[in-house]
Amino acid sequence: MATRSTIMDTNSYRADSGVPLSPRTAQLVARRQDVLGPSYRLFYRRPVHLVSGHGAHLVDADGADYLDVYNNVASVGHAHPRVAAAIAEQAATLNTHTRYLHDGIVGYGESVLALLPEQLDRVMFCCTGSEANDLAVRVAQAATGGTGVIVTAEAYHGNTALTSGMSPALGTAQPLGTDVRVVPAPDAYRVRVGDPARPGDPADPAALGRWMADQVRAQIADLERHGIRFAAFLADSIFSSDGVHPDPVGYLQPVMEAVHQAGGVWIADEVQPGFARTGEAFWGFARHGVVPDLVTMGKPMANGIPMSALAARSEVLAPFGEQIPYFNTFGGNPVAMAAAQAVLDVIHDEGLQRHAATVGARLLTELRHLAARHPSVGDVRGAGLYIGVDLVQDPVTRAPDTATALDVVEGLRDRYVLTSVCGPGNVLKLRPPLVFDDDDVDRLCTELDEVLTEVEHRPARH
Amino acid sequence: MATRSTIMDTNSYRADSGVPLSPRTAQLVARRQDVLGPSYRLFYRRPVHLVSGHGAHLVDADGADYLDVYNNVASVGHAHPRVAAAIAEQAATLNTHTRYLHDGIVGYGESVLALLPEQLDRVMFCCTGSEANDLAVRVAQAATGGTGVIVTAEAYHGNTALTSGMSPALGTAQPLGTDVRVVPAPDAYRVRVGDPARPGDPADPAALGRWMADQVRAQIADLERHGIRFAAFLADSIFSSDGVHPDPVGYLQPVMEAVHQAGGVWIADEVQPGFARTGEAFWGFARHGVVPDLVTMGKPMANGIPMSALAARSEVLAPFGEQIPYFNTFGGNPVAMAAAQAVLDVIHDEGLQRHAATVGARLLTELRHLAARHPSVGDVRGAGLYIGVDLVQDPVTRAPDTATALDVVEGLRDRYVLTSVCGPGNVLKLRPPLVFDDDDVDRLCTELDEVLTEVEHRPARH
Repeated sequence: MATRSTIMDTNSYRADSGVPLSPRTAQLVARRQDVLGPSYRLFYRRPVHLVSGHGAHLVDADGADYLDVYNNVASVGHAHPRVAAAIAEQAATLNTHTRYLHDGIVGYGESVLALLPEQLDRVMFCCTGSEANDLAVRVAQAATGGTGVIVTAEAYHGNTALTSGMSPALGTAQPLGTDVRVVPAPDAYRVRVGDPARPGDPADPAALGRWMADQVRAQIADLERHGIRFAAFLADSIFSSDGVHPDPVGYLQPVMEAVHQAGGVWIADEVQPGFARTGEAFWGFARHGVVPDLVTMGKPMANGIPMSALAARSEVLAPFGEQIPYFNTFGGNPVAMAAAQAVLDVIHDEGLQRHAATVGARLLTELRHLAARHPSVGDVRGAGLYIGVDLVQDPVTRAPDTATALDVVEGLRDRYVLTSVCGPGNVLKLRPPLVFDDDDVDRLCTELDEVLTEVEHRPARH
Repeated sequence: MATRSTIMDTNSYRADSGVPLSPRTAQLVARRQDVLGPSYRLFYRRPVHLVSGHGAHLVDADGADYLDVYNNVASVGHAHPRVAAAIAEQAATLNTHTRYLHDGIVGYGESVLALLPEQLDRVMFCCTGSEANDLAVRVAQAATGGTGVIVTAEAYHGNTALTSGMSPALGTAQPLGTDVRVVPAPDAYRVRVGDPARPGDPADPAALGRWMADQVRAQIADLERHGIRFAAFLADSIFSSDGVHPDPVGYLQPVMEAVHQAGGVWIADEVQPGFARTGEAFWGFARHGVVPDLVTMGKPMANGIPMSALAARSEVLAPFGEQIPYFNTFGGNPVAMAAAQAVLDVIHDEGLQRHAATVGARLLTELRHLAARHPSVGDVRGAGLYIGVDLVQDPVTRAPDTATALDVVEGLRDRYVLTSVCGPGNVLKLRPPLVFDDDDVDRLCTELDEVLTEVEHRPARH
C-alpha cells in the first residue's frame, strides 16, 4: 500500500482534466483559484456548488438535491433547526472567552464528561481536531517525559506542524516527525496474523490484537534504540483514514496493554468515530472495551461551529496543566457551547445513536448483498454509519483498486450522491449525517449498484 | 524585565487568595474547577460571571453593567445584531467545508484581499490565530529552506506545539524552540539607541529601527553560527504582549530590510492590531509603511465565531502550497464567512476605523493628563483603541511595577471596569470594542484616576 505522493490519484477537481463545467461553476472556480492558496482542493472532476442543506441532503445552485453520504460535521443533519436556534440565541446574547465565568462551558463540560468513562474527569476546549491532537500530544509528552509517538500507516491527525508530522495520509511531501513511528493498519481483510504455518483467524480479536500489539512493541523498541522515549500511541479508534477497520470488536485491548506496559499514554482520536456514529457505542474506543488516557474529539461536536476538546484523566493531565499556561481565545466560547449542548440534546432526544445502529446495520447488509454481485468489491465493513467499501483489482490478491474507487466516487457524484475515498485511496468512505434514513439507504444502494456495474463493464485500464 | 515563570503575578483568580465570593459565584467556580483542566485561569481575584453583552458593555448574573476595556474579539460590539443575524441566517441554511464550492468563501476572500496591499494576493482560512501562525511559519520555512524564527521578548503567537515555542510570554516552564531566537521589545520608553556617548533619540524612527534591526541581525548571526538557516521574523506589528509599542511610526522599515537582506520572510501577526483597531490604518503593519510577506489575522475577524486567516504573497506561498496538502475542516466555513463579511460591513458602514482613531486619540490625551498627576504612570502610548499604560516603581529608573499594575486592574474590576495587563506584567492593556464612545472614555478615566490615587496612597509594598 503505497503512500500517496501526489494529488493526482485523490478525489479532486483538476483544471487540466478537460471536464466541461457550467459557466456559473467555471466562473466561481476561477474566482476561487484567484483568491485561495494552491493547497485548496475541490472534490470531484465537476465540483459541487452548494447553497443549502437539510437532514442528509444538500442542494446546489441549480436546485438539485444531493444525497450526502460523506459529511460527519453536520452530524445531526444539515442546518438542524434546534442547533441553528441555539446558535442564533447565544450569538445575539454574548460570545466571549473562558477567563470569565459562564454557565455554558461548565454545563457542557459536565454533559460531555458524563458520557465518558469516569476515569476521564477533565476536559479542555479548543477549536479544531488538529488543536486537540496537538494539545494531547504535548500533554502526553509532559506526562511521560518522552517524545516518541506511534501512529498507523495512513493516519491523519491534523494540520498543525506537530500533527502534520503524525499524519502519513498527507503524503510523502510532508515529512513525518523524527520522533514518530508508523505501524501498519489493523486491516483484518488483508493482514495475516500469527505463525505463517498456523495462520491466526483475523476474526479472532485476540489474534488481530496480538499482531497489532507486536507491531507497536517493535516500534517502541525502535524508538528506544534511537534514544527516544516513548510517549504515546495516537489512534483513531475506527482507523478511518486507514480505510475503516472496526472489527473484530475488542482487538484494541492487547494493543493498549502493550502501550501501558511501555509507560506510554493512549490517545483516542475520536474526531471521526465519536458522538454516536458507530451506533454500538457513543465513542469508538468504547466498542473495544478499553479506557484511553486522553480522548480528543472534534468534527461533529457543534454541527459546524468550530469546536474540539481534549478529555483527560486528571493524573495524566496534571504535569502539563500545572506547569504550562494554555489559553485558547475561541475555545469553549458560549456560542460553541450552546451549539454543542444542542447537538447532545438532539442526539439524545432523536435517538440518533440507536438510529445509527439500526440504519447502519441495514446499510451494511445491503452493501454486502451488492458486494456478492460485484467482483470489484473485496470487502464491506463498518460500524453504525461509518462504513468502508474496499475495492480490489482481484478478489484473490486483494490488491487495492484506487482507479476504480475514484471512478465510483465520480459516478456517484454524477448521480447526485456525495461520497469520497479513504485508506490508500481504494476504500469508499460512507459517513453520512446520522439522520440518514431507509429511503437514503435505498437511493445509495441503487445508484452504487448501477455505478459498479458501469465501471466493471468499462474497457480494462489495469 | 524578567519573564514570568509562575501565574502568581498575573491577573488571575486564586482559590487560596481568601477573597470572599458570592455563593453563586463560589458554586460556579467550584463546578468549573471540577470539570476543566488545571491550565484554565479566571481573571480577577473575584471572577466575573457574565450573561450578556451589548456594544462595549457586559452584564453579569446580578445585572451589573461592566465597561469592557479589554475585549477585541467582539470588536464591533458584543452581540452586534447585524453579525448575529448573519450567523443565524447562515446557520439555518448551510454550514460545510471548502471542498465544495460556496460563494461565501470566495466573496469574503476577495473582500479581505482588497483591504491588503496588492502584493498579498492569496488567502487561506483557519480557525484560530494559533493555527494561522503555525501555518505561516511552515510556509516561511518551505519558502526559505530554513527553520530559524526570531520573535520579541514577551511575544505571544499561539498555543500549538510550534507556536508555543515561539511565545516567551508563556513563561519559562514552556521551552522555546531550539530554532527560535528572541530580540528585546522595541520599547521606545526604555531602550537607549545608538552610541552611549551620543544617545539616539527614541522618537526618531530611523534610530529605533536601526537599533532593532541590529538586534535582529545579531540573532540571525547566532542562528547561522548554530547551523540553523534563518526563515522568518514573526512579529505583532503593535507588539501587544510586549507592552504595546506603536511608535515612532516607521521604525519597522529598517528591521524589514534586515530580514529581507538575510533572505528571511516577514510574518506580520495582525491578530491584535488588525481590522481597524489602530485607527490610523486597517492593519498594524500599514502604519509603518511596510509590506509583509505573510500576514496572519484572527481574533476580531468574525466577532467571536472562531476564524483566522493567512494572507500571502503568491510566490512565498507557492513552495508550501504546491507540495503540502492543507485542509482545515472548519476553516472558511459558510457561517464564519457570513459573520466575517458582516464584521467588515459593520466596520465600513459604522465608520469604525475613523471612530477608533478619534476616540482613541481622545482617550490617549485624557490618559496622558492622568499620567501627569500620577507618578506611578511612567508612560502612556497607543494607536487608536490599543493603548498601554506603563506603571513604574520610579519615574527615573522606569523599573516596571507589576504589583501596582495588578492592583489597578483589580481596583478597576471592583468598579466594574474590565482591563488586564501585558508586557512584563506592568502595562495596563486597554483594548476595548471599537464602538467604545466618549461616555466610556469618561467613565474609564474617572475610575482609573480614583484607583491610581488609591494605590498611590496605600502603604508601600516595595
